[in-house]
Amino acid sequence: MSGRLAVIGLGPGSETMITPQARDEVGRATHIFGYFPYVERLSPRPEQIMHGSDNRQELDRARAALDLASSGQNVAIVSGGDPGVFAMAAAICEAIDDGPPAYRDIDLVSVPGVTAMLAVAAICGAPLGHDFCAINLSDNLKPFSVIEERALCCAQTGMAMAFYNPISKSRPWQLDHIFDRLRSHLPPQVPVIFGRAVGRPDQCVSSVALADAKGSMADMATCVIVGSVTTRSIERPGRDPLIYTPRYWPDELAGDVR
Amino acid sequence: MSGRLAVIGLGPGSETMITPQARDEVGRATHIFGYFPYVERLSPRPEQIMHGSDNRQELDRARAALDLASSGQNVAIVSGGDPGVFAMAAAICEAIDDGPPAYRDIDLVSVPGVTAMLAVAAICGAPLGHDFCAINLSDNLKPFSVIEERALCCAQTGMAMAFYNPISKSRPWQLDHIFDRLRSHLPPQVPVIFGRAVGRPDQCVSSVALADAKGSMADMATCVIVGSVTTRSIERPGRDPLIYTPRYWPDELAGDVR
Repeated sequence: MSGRLAVIGLGPGSETMITPQARDEVGRATHIFGYFPYVERLSPRPEQIMHGSDNRQELDRARAALDLASSGQNVAIVSGGDPGVFAMAAAICEAIDDGPPAYRDIDLVSVPGVTAMLAVAAICGAPLGHDFCAINLSDNLKPFSVIEERALCCAQTGMAMAFYNPISKSRPWQLDHIFDRLRSHLPPQVPVIFGRAVGRPDQCVSSVALADAKGSMADMATCVIVGSVTTRSIERPGRDPLIYTPRYWPDELAGDVR
Repeated sequence: MSGRLAVIGLGPGSETMITPQARDEVGRATHIFGYFPYVERLSPRPEQIMHGSDNRQELDRARAALDLASSGQNVAIVSGGDPGVFAMAAAICEAIDDGPPAYRDIDLVSVPGVTAMLAVAAICGAPLGHDFCAINLSDNLKPFSVIEERALCCAQTGMAMAFYNPISKSRPWQLDHIFDRLRSHLPPQVPVIFGRAVGRPDQCVSSVALADAKGSMADMATCVIVGSVTTRSIERPGRDPLIYTPRYWPDELAGDVR
């Protein structure tokens, strides 16, 4: 008899940004899987069995959770942010697609959450207030040329962009390279936002002009938002500037798209 | 003395998807502004003053809320989903940018929420599990040529896309036109998802192949997700198919990008 697997988004990191649905689903599971830092955010009951694992083990984690669920257990797998945005939901689907038929009998539910780019954007104003894209900068699973092409196409067509997993020890130069390429397509004053740990004690959100953006301003847990040609800053006495992208697209720019 | 304005995302529509932070901020306000259907989702206390308004009055609503806040009041303005994604946060920033200096003294906070595309994606599997973009299909504030260019560029570079405000009485043909254009750049079997009212009693989420997608399958409140060339469906006996976009990009497609 087959069990249940809940793929749960815990939001950016603050207790106050976890939805009641996510909290209920965590409470209902007997086994809870996840990357160590996310599992450690939970306060399990004594009878709940925690299965923390390392980063970059998404498929192994997915298969272990699916095996337990298909054996009839009540299983949860937690992600930070939203599970469908560069998190566990796609890895679970890949494992089901390539896995035994029993995986398809599991009662699979996905619980959405507040993904990092929305939390970072809320701190700054509304940098994603116009059309935008979300790009995983990791080239572990795709060629860097594809990532570069996507970022340039978004810049050229006037979309803001949010970069997830922007840099790591094994990918030290890619973010600087992307900034360099974007500088040849966007004005130097376009705001670039670096946001990490939103809602946590170590929250750090800052912005610089694209001209001054450096890869060293980000780490693996940073969400980087690059504005579009229309993104603006509003100076406020005694407060951080408001960074936003207007809802409208100026007629005089319409012809400039590509 | 200046007051406070909280720009709050209520999530897709279910009580279980409203974050504690959003609920607290709603409870804290004396005046609550918003589009009628969102204001009607709240259960105000007797002393809270509700200011429901019609659709397409975002700037008037923003200015009214900012005026009350700058007079010292404790004001909230609610959006469905996330306020920073095609909702009130950008309208508020536009009003501050063009408004009196007093607007810049307001204690402005934005409370993120679960935006529609994440809730719709969670119901289907993980269609946004790879790079993706979010496009507001309304051409009220931007030329349709710009929208078209962005959708095609995303399809050509292998990004899935989520369309907000896909169709309305005043924009009856645009979505069909976009589907037609996408059919010349994407395989006919690419999944197209139509999701509305997620988490509400009238929830309706369905999918068709791009070859069969029609504008009449959407309404103003539908979020439409169009997969990329790599988006797949997993058939499951007795269950809806799982629709997902793998995290990896196949090497054999790398050269095909654009």
